[in-house]
Amino acid sequence: VSSLRVAAAQINPTVGDLGANAAKILEQMDAAEARGCDLVCFPELAVTGYPPEDLLLKEGFVVDAMRVLDELAAASGECVAIVGCVVDGARAGVDLVAPGDARTSLGGTERRPWLVNAAAVLARGSIQAIVAKRLLPNYAVFDEQRWFLAGSGPHPLFRIAGAVVGVTVCEDLWSPHGPVAELAEEGANLIVSVNASPFSIGQHELRRQVVADRIEESGASIVYVNQVGGQDELVFDGGSMVVGESGRLLGRAASFREELLVVDLDVTSDDESITDALKELSDSSRRSGAPIEGDVADDLGEDAEIYEALVLGTRDYLAKNGFNDAVIGLSGGIDSTIVATIAVDALGAEHVRGISMPSRYSSEHSRSDAQDLAERLGIAFSTIPIEPAHQAFQGMLGEILGGNVAGLTDENLQSRLRGVLLMAVSNETGAIVLTTGNKSEMATGYSTLYGDSAGGFAVIKDVPKTRVYDLCRYRNERAAAAGEIPPIPESVMAKPPSAELRPDQKDEDSLPPYELLDPVLAAYVEGDFTAPELIAQGHDPELVRRVVWLVDTNEYKRRQMPPGPRVTSKAFGKDRRMPITNRYRPS
Amino acid sequence: VSSLRVAAAQINPTVGDLGANAAKILEQMDAAEARGCDLVCFPELAVTGYPPEDLLLKEGFVVDAMRVLDELAAASGECVAIVGCVVDGARAGVDLVAPGDARTSLGGTERRPWLVNAAAVLARGSIQAIVAKRLLPNYAVFDEQRWFLAGSGPHPLFRIAGAVVGVTVCEDLWSPHGPVAELAEEGANLIVSVNASPFSIGQHELRRQVVADRIEESGASIVYVNQVGGQDELVFDGGSMVVGESGRLLGRAASFREELLVVDLDVTSDDESITDALKELSDSSRRSGAPIEGDVADDLGEDAEIYEALVLGTRDYLAKNGFNDAVIGLSGGIDSTIVATIAVDALGAEHVRGISMPSRYSSEHSRSDAQDLAERLGIAFSTIPIEPAHQAFQGMLGEILGGNVAGLTDENLQSRLRGVLLMAVSNETGAIVLTTGNKSEMATGYSTLYGDSAGGFAVIKDVPKTRVYDLCRYRNERAAAAGEIPPIPESVMAKPPSAELRPDQKDEDSLPPYELLDPVLAAYVEGDFTAPELIAQGHDPELVRRVVWLVDTNEYKRRQMPPGPRVTSKAFGKDRRMPITNRYRPS
Repeated sequence: VSSLRVAAAQINPTVGDLGANAAKILEQMDAAEARGCDLVCFPELAVTGYPPEDLLLKEGFVVDAMRVLDELAAASGECVAIVGCVVDGARAGVDLVAPGDARTSLGGTERRPWLVNAAAVLARGSIQAIVAKRLLPNYAVFDEQRWFLAGSGPHPLFRIAGAVVGVTVCEDLWSPHGPVAELAEEGANLIVSVNASPFSIGQHELRRQVVADRIEESGASIVYVNQVGGQDELVFDGGSMVVGESGRLLGRAASFREELLVVDLDVTSDDESITDALKELSDSSRRSGAPIEGDVADDLGEDAEIYEALVLGTRDYLAKNGFNDAVIGLSGGIDSTIVATIAVDALGAEHVRGISMPSRYSSEHSRSDAQDLAERLGIAFSTIPIEPAHQAFQGMLGEILGGNVAGLTDENLQSRLRGVLLMAVSNETGAIVLTTGNKSEMATGYSTLYGDSAGGFAVIKDVPKTRVYDLCRYRNERAAAAGEIPPIPESVMAKPPSAELRPDQKDEDSLPPYELLDPVLAAYVEGDFTAPELIAQGHDPELVRRVVWLVDTNEYKRRQMPPGPRVTSKAFGKDRRMPITNRYRPS
Repeated sequence: VSSLRVAAAQINPTVGDLGANAAKILEQMDAAEARGCDLVCFPELAVTGYPPEDLLLKEGFVVDAMRVLDELAAASGECVAIVGCVVDGARAGVDLVAPGDARTSLGGTERRPWLVNAAAVLARGSIQAIVAKRLLPNYAVFDEQRWFLAGSGPHPLFRIAGAVVGVTVCEDLWSPHGPVAELAEEGANLIVSVNASPFSIGQHELRRQVVADRIEESGASIVYVNQVGGQDELVFDGGSMVVGESGRLLGRAASFREELLVVDLDVTSDDESITDALKELSDSSRRSGAPIEGDVADDLGEDAEIYEALVLGTRDYLAKNGFNDAVIGLSGGIDSTIVATIAVDALGAEHVRGISMPSRYSSEHSRSDAQDLAERLGIAFSTIPIEPAHQAFQGMLGEILGGNVAGLTDENLQSRLRGVLLMAVSNETGAIVLTTGNKSEMATGYSTLYGDSAGGFAVIKDVPKTRVYDLCRYRNERAAAAGEIPPIPESVMAKPPSAELRPDQKDEDSLPPYELLDPVLAAYVEGDFTAPELIAQGHDPELVRRVVWLVDTNEYKRRQMPPGPRVTSKAFGKDRRMPITNRYRPS
């Protein structure tokens, strides 16, 4: 049995900010060293932040990232640091010749990948090894085969404080009979898994199951470290963990925030099966004093998880893009209400401004609900009726279109006048406009392009309407439990949803009731079933045909939406790459 | 020597429209049969249209496409048809187990590819063989490893009219010592290459060079068939060709339109090296009468090529998405002028409407140039000053922002008021708004989100400003050569570019002169150099820093732009996947 002290450094890097990311990594390397750790592990591509996307096509960027890695290596000490970084494949010892090597045939440009997604092993002032990721995900939001070559050949192993350590990168962990099984066969009794695994509903439980499966398969302990933080549409939730060879959860970092998780760990050695590829890094442990039991963070519930993902996604999008303040159009409806609440939790009330922009069709309760919300949240609030602009445009349009402007044109017009107002406030104050459309609206196109969808970040674009209600209830209950004023006015949750763009309008005039709509949307969008399949499954045929038609014909709108945090297993955007021009209409 | 008659069916399918695509294919199969052809070849994924993107994740879609393929097979006769279609990998005999088979480990969902991008060989009422694409492009605009498994193992060969035929799909052709060389080694003397190769500047010449290289390498003749037509941001230019084993170009289809290219061809047989994998389809040729010499379409010049790509891209985007008419804001500037001209060439003058929307800062010559253009083009034209809305908003915003609205906020406001007007006209009339921003503006963010960038299709978003002038001159010269009135008023080309959103404004107040800007943009965006590299190459340091900063900080705007035709080697969009949140700022 070898006893060692391991650390999972769950950090929040910023894509491209090599200097700041290096400083974060150094700080945690120093902390782990000071706490007597034998090993400290950082997330996948920690140096660049994940995913750097086509920055990786800039050779200069890769050279800069590798220079940072060299600096980190020079600063490494007795505590072995395992750091995710992009590395030139030649340096990583990976065979650079792709099948049929087309690199030089494409008009001189080199389009084939030449990089690896690596975990660098740093100790005593130098890079001890570079381990290339073997399984490169190219599905869902992942495009790794666009940039990276896959690692292959024999696995390197490392002796650290007596343990035999194998290193894997993210997807490598997910395959039965894959890299982890191979490492265990070659003698590893401790697997380090460096990850950048984004949040989606249920993903954390799935990861724990996969770790449990690999432990059962390999008999090795696992240190699982994950990135935390928002990056455009992705939210990384952290939840790093250390799980012993018995399957016992020895420590788990909190979700949605940075943490250095330190855990003392025993691993059973069996040196007989060890291959020649073993590299000796340290024979005895640096740990001292009383054994450190890792903290085990509580499980959040599903609504809490989603809510925290939205808060972190919003906070990081603003902070990492240089925004301090947000402005939100408050209609008194439930969508703008939850968005304002999330914004306050993300930024603080003093950084959020609500604007009510009633039209001639707005009800009194909409105005009063918006004001009530603003008072509960303690945010700046102003009201500006759009009537003067509405009249001006009706006059101008009447001339060109002949006669009165009415119907959908007039509804969209009102929505766009609000968009113009909010964007002017944004331009003048530097605050970003947060849009308030939910996933049910995104899916069916129940929104106005350049109107209510105009803004910089779409906080709940991946949250179905029925879930919006759940999140409101969750947030109010949390407030009540803490003895605080519940932020969401009850009347907002009680009234039927309405866009209020014509007299007595209700969402249900145009859309099926959300309780019926959302399950069909989930099956069509996330489940990828076709209309005939959904009907065969027992869904109402008319409902299915209507919903599918709405989703298919509104792809063009979604293409122009602002980004927003992904929380489901399939968000609109790079997760679902549907052509706009698409005449597939099976009946 | 075997003599045979081959046909390249350069068709324009619509993504997802399986029935209409099948009808197009059948029509050309019949035509080729009637003309005594031995072989007719269709583009890559002709049944589904290319690229079907995530429609391929719908199992029901794949099943429907395979059913269509069966119907085409049933209709096939003596003339062998080679048709691109997606096929279940199991049916294509491809090993379905991906490395480390993660298909069942991901929470029960099967995310690993199970499909092949195939060329089906149809003859005498049935599918004779299915040939899987081997090299799957996963760079630039291509994501094929997201959906497809790669073909491998021995190549099938087919005896058709005495020739020994090998089949390749698109990328397979591009690799030296790749599939073509292997096929030739196994005895093929005629290579069929089915393609969906999108247009970009110089791409046609590159394809001809690659075909020449493969012929030199293999000694085989090549039938190269390409898709034609617009699909979202891609324009397929066709340019199908038949090249003899001597390297002689025997026939070439026109670019940018459908054509059945029929060519008589002699191939030198050498049966000694033929493998066991040979399938006999026909021993003697069906050709009769005088030999058919293929037409060889003229080369277009570079500006003509780009112009035709924009016309076809615009025409197809509208037609395939159900639009008959377009509306364009005419400022009197060169960008809206070329867009209106392209729209008229794509749709006909009776389907294009121009609207001039002068503000208090618009010059008299802008209004008169817009009107002059409309008269030359023969399109409907109206003028609607935005002053009433401008005043209304200044009053409303003055209340909320305190004091006068001025500066950038007021400039953006005017642009957005125009966007609101155009979108209202679109909503009321069903015409799509064509936006007029060029690539230099897209790159630097010199446009107003929801203002001049608001609309359904961005015709010149991938055309740099200096090229816009070239296209105007090209179009006027073409008109002059045909004895027509040149559509572009000379004064539009002569005056300095201006947004006219404040008194005496010129683009050069905010941007470097376009002759200096465009080369730096090309090197930064298309060349993927970093700022320090560009400076080291001799570009002016201050200019480089300013341009790079503008490009980097405007990614968020580009993410909300409408789609538009790709014409350069790297367009914004799925061709250049830059994170919005990106703090890489090398100095």
